Amino acid sequence: MSKYDEIQQSAYDANMQLPKLGLVLFTFGNVSAADRTAGVFAIKPSGVPYEDLSPAKMVIVDFDGKIVEGTLRPSSDTLTHAVLYKHWEKIGGIVHTHSTYATAWAQSHRSIPIFGTTHADHNTVDIPCAPPMSDEMIQGNYEYETGFQIMHALKEKNLGYEEIEMILVGNHAPFTWGKTPEKAVYNSAVLECIAQMALLTEQINPNAPRLQDSLIKKHFERKHGPDSYYGQ
Amino acid sequence: MSKYDEIQQSAYDANMQLPKLGLVLFTFGNVSAADRTAGVFAIKPSGVPYEDLSPAKMVIVDFDGKIVEGTLRPSSDTLTHAVLYKHWEKIGGIVHTHSTYATAWAQSHRSIPIFGTTHADHNTVDIPCAPPMSDEMIQGNYEYETGFQIMHALKEKNLGYEEIEMILVGNHAPFTWGKTPEKAVYNSAVLECIAQMALLTEQINPNAPRLQDSLIKKHFERKHGPDSYYGQ
Amino acid sequence: MSKYDEIQQSAYDANMQLPKLGLVLFTFGNVSAADRTAGVFAIKPSGVPYEDLSPAKMVIVDFDGKIVEGTLRPSSDTLTHAVLYKHWEKIGGIVHTHSTYATAWAQSHRSIPIFGTTHADHNTVDIPCAPPMSDEMIQGNYEYETGFQIMHALKEKNLGYEEIEMILVGNHAPFTWGKTPEKAVYNSAVLECIAQMALLTEQINPNAPRLQDSLIKKHFERKHGPDSYYGQ
Amino acid sequence: MSKYDEIQQSAYDANMQLPKLGLVLFTFGNVSAADRTAGVFAIKPSGVPYEDLSPAKMVIVDFDGKIVEGTLRPSSDTLTHAVLYKHWEKIGGIVHTHSTYATAWAQSHRSIPIFGTTHADHNTVDIPCAPPMSDEMIQGNYEYETGFQIMHALKEKNLGYEEIEMILVGNHAPFTWGKTPEKAVYNSAVLECIAQMALLTEQINPNAPRLQDSLIKKHFERKHGPDSYYGQ
Repeated sequence: MSKYDEIQQSAYDANMQLPKLGLVLFTFGNVSAADRTAGVFAIKPSGVPYEDLSPAKMVIVDFDGKIVEGTLRPSSDTLTHAVLYKHWEKIGGIVHTHSTYATAWAQSHRSIPIFGTTHADHNTVDIPCAPPMSDEMIQGNYEYETGFQIMHALKEKNLGYEEIEMILVGNHAPFTWGKTPEKAVYNSAVLECIAQMALLTEQINPNAPRLQDSLIKKHFERKHGPDSYYGQ
Repeated sequence: MSKYDEIQQSAYDANMQLPKLGLVLFTFGNVSAADRTAGVFAIKPSGVPYEDLSPAKMVIVDFDGKIVEGTLRPSSDTLTHAVLYKHWEKIGGIVHTHSTYATAWAQSHRSIPIFGTTHADHNTVDIPCAPPMSDEMIQGNYEYETGFQIMHALKEKNLGYEEIEMILVGNHAPFTWGKTPEKAVYNSAVLECIAQMALLTEQINPNAPRLQDSLIKKHFERKHGPDSYYGQ
Repeated sequence: MSKYDEIQQSAYDANMQLPKLGLVLFTFGNVSAADRTAGVFAIKPSGVPYEDLSPAKMVIVDFDGKIVEGTLRPSSDTLTHAVLYKHWEKIGGIVHTHSTYATAWAQSHRSIPIFGTTHADHNTVDIPCAPPMSDEMIQGNYEYETGFQIMHALKEKNLGYEEIEMILVGNHAPFTWGKTPEKAVYNSAVLECIAQMALLTEQINPNAPRLQDSLIKKHFERKHGPDSYYGQ
Repeated sequence: MSKYDEIQQSAYDANMQLPKLGLVLFTFGNVSAADRTAGVFAIKPSGVPYEDLSPAKMVIVDFDGKIVEGTLRPSSDTLTHAVLYKHWEKIGGIVHTHSTYATAWAQSHRSIPIFGTTHADHNTVDIPCAPPMSDEMIQGNYEYETGFQIMHALKEKNLGYEEIEMILVGNHAPFTWGKTPEKAVYNSAVLECIAQMALLTEQINPNAPRLQDSLIKKHFERKHGPDSYYGQ
């Protein structure tokens, strides 16, 4: 028994959702779950197949990326998770995948235009694509710098991490987050869905217009904020 | 036990078909079933995952959108359903999804051209895309106005709701209907199939012609009308 | 018990393969199995869902399209099957589907170019697309004429029905055949696979060349003819 | 019992992974497993459906392509496997499939550009497409020559078989290899994933740039070489 039982179980459950949702091939993804009181998070061990995972195998790491508990090596993306937890105080879960359509947009260096209400139900803006990192950042502490690249890209677009919970890292792949690991996984699946629809939309009509402001506002407010009336 | 048992069961069964047919991600869809004698319909509660649904959770609403029975909040699209039931006296079921290909056409603001017999087996015309709604309609009673936008779009094309049982709402996603909820669900799956084939057709041949009139007539009449000879 | 037990079972088994292979939505397909000695074939009843089928429900029809045994109405495409059985003496099974990619090529009025060995393993030529039928043929005995349209298209290209076992009917969808119903179903799945790969090939390289003759010959002869060395 | 039990089991297990990973239709693929000490490999029998396979049915062949044990005819691609085992001393498994996206690139005669980290996690270069074979090679000992075509294509690009474990054969389809059959199967699935993402990337942005060198180096070294920190 570990005093981190709860986040280990939560990280395990969330990781196991990725193959069920068709978001990962082999081990190409990872989810972490944070315990804000203890100042740590539980994350998938690196390169371990999903069918061999168990809650006890989730590695406990602090917000500086130091291993606190666990015998396995944590995900190679651990430092990116650590940086985001350290700077974004209200998130409780982070997901990284190489899901097919979202990754294709990241490889294309394009933000995903807001074309419809499926997008607007979750975000009021285009889903940003952070520019590829500089050679210096890559050759330095790469995964640590990836966290900063994500934060800088949001800042440059005047977006807060509570406003938008998903991003593409140029050349690489998506990251999503949320108040809980479950919400972060939900965001990963939503992003993949939006990414596919946006490509199809441009194929059907290369001049398809972005969504009008009133509809963006309406759909977002149906689901979010004080006057929301979606859900229970 | 509710005196609305039958439509609750019917709405439940039809809702559960949506994930099986691959037409919804998470809770992005809803089906309703009408009881014309009682002047009410049963509809999916808002934001409740399909695996947590039960017939008893279906909310009973009248054709003005007023909740008649049920403790859960009905689908956020309830007023659209209500408007259509009120004005279209012969329909018994309505479906709304964000299925991938149909939604991409809606986001593209294009009607789906009739390219082949798969389409003609079900419709004699292009599947219309209602234009995006005006800012006034969106900022007003949005879901209520969506029902009128759908009716206006059919009227403008001189189409009756018994002639065509599916439509795209520009920027948004498809709605389908039918004499029963099962038929409305069937129409949703058919629409998604037609939408995918139409995109592929244009990709294979950007100058693919619309179907000739004689073939449209033949295939539709094989399945519909006094001389039909499809089915039992 | 019927004296047509064997072809009913064979037609049933082959029909049940269509949904398993992802080739049909709802009831959009049918398979028949011929008994050459008796001069009849067993075919799927019209519009009956696959899960409700049984061998005994397969309708027995002669090569002029006359029902010989069975209480259900046969597939609306029955006359097309009858014409082909009557004229092509060595085939024992026919399949019609609206499989997604093959149907998109048919709607595009294009033959499928032979781009690679997957294609050449099964055919030495482009998969022909029969031109859309004339208004007269459509308004006349439509399904009967569809059989002749298929035969004319092969004849025009100097192809025998033993050389190529698959065709697209322009505006409509594919038909495949073979010595047995199992082989005809196999051909349907192969056609769908080839159709998808050909579209993707043109998307990757709009100038992709057709396969060189020597490779067409080699791959076809590996699988077919006196010197074949594929299989057991 | 055969003294080749181990490689028969290994080849069987690896072959059975192909349909599970969605990489084959019917029998369009084969895996072999080598025993370097005995100088032989076990390979799938030709044209036998996956559901009818068993370890004992795997055919034992030496590196000159001579059958050593087994009553079934080996895969028609056996000589290609033999040539590669003979010349590449450190590989233990080979896979050939006609997986959809990789085959489409092969039919397009294009190498797959390195667009992102999913690619760079596994290869530092574009995935090469060997040019179509000459008429002479095809008319001669075709499958034997296919092995040489693969080796020549790597040589021409100054690539070693340990550097890159996957290739497209122009007009035909992919081959992959690895130290074990499991690794070769893994490479087949990775290749299919990369092939799909690369096509989507070009569709989203026809001018998408190849990955910068620093990121190629970083991602490859995370997973490979003395300083790797991926996995356990």
